[in-house]
Amino acid sequence: MVYIRAEVEIRPTEDENKVIKALKNVVLTDNIRIVEAGRGYKIAIAESSDLSTLLKLYELFRKQRILDTARNVMLKNSRSGILTIQLNKQAAYQGVISFVDNELESQLGAITITVTSDKLSEIIDWLAPRTAHGRPLWERDVPKDA
Amino acid sequence: MVYIRAEVEIRPTEDENKVIKALKNVVLTDNIRIVEAGRGYKIAIAESSDLSTLLKLYELFRKQRILDTARNVMLKNSRSGILTIQLNKQAAYQGVISFVDNELESQLGAITITVTSDKLSEIIDWLAPRTAHGRPLWERDVPKDA
Repeated sequence: MVYIRAEVEIRPTEDENKVIKALKNVVLTDNIRIVEAGRGYKIAIAESSDLSTLLKLYELFRKQRILDTARNVMLKNSRSGILTIQLNKQAAYQGVISFVDNELESQLGAITITVTSDKLSEIIDWLAPRTAHGRPLWERDVPKDA
Repeated sequence: MVYIRAEVEIRPTEDENKVIKALKNVVLTDNIRIVEAGRGYKIAIAESSDLSTLLKLYELFRKQRILDTARNVMLKNSRSGILTIQLNKQAAYQGVISFVDNELESQLGAITITVTSDKLSEIIDWLAPRTAHGRPLWERDVPKDA
């Protein structure tokens, strides 16, 4: 089984609908809940047990031709069956994947996607296959029973 | 003559009106212009040559009983006739002064107020007088010809 969780902070000066749009630009879901986090802050959370939730990433990795980068980032950030992907919220709002790779950028406001599964390497092979000269060496179907 | 400039970034996911509200909570002005900064970012700017623009700070320093802190921060950040005050944008939205004192916090989104004048020390003495046990040792009128 796979468990996918995406979350992003909504700050007091932010427009909740714009943050939700940013989230939906990178995560395929209609099921977002808003949790109060105190002092005017909220968190938008999407949960799923279906890999199709990741189809936006699948498409954007190809559209932006960043399969190699995406693969390296995901391999680097997989541990003990949990893959963590952090994306710049402002870029996501504009429909663009921009990986966050340090604490500072993360605090600037990131969308955090975690994928928990026993079959992470298959999921990564599907999302971002190894390439030769930028072209995928394979294209897999969505992993079954991930 | 005094030149006061307050500016704050409006990020793509932010609500322009909320950011303007944050700015107006700490700067007394009806004259805010919005400048496009590219890639969906904007900057809200208020300019003035009237010290009454700083009356919100004057009031909040007293209301929050932070005269000593405010005085120290302003003395530390005055140089060559320019005083720079950086305030946390989210706190400002909630009507609270929270000084930003490092690069990280600044990048999280700050309201930057600069005051350019030959009489900065008089302006600081007016905004945040020295205290004894938290009580002001003096209360001055708005400096003339600052």
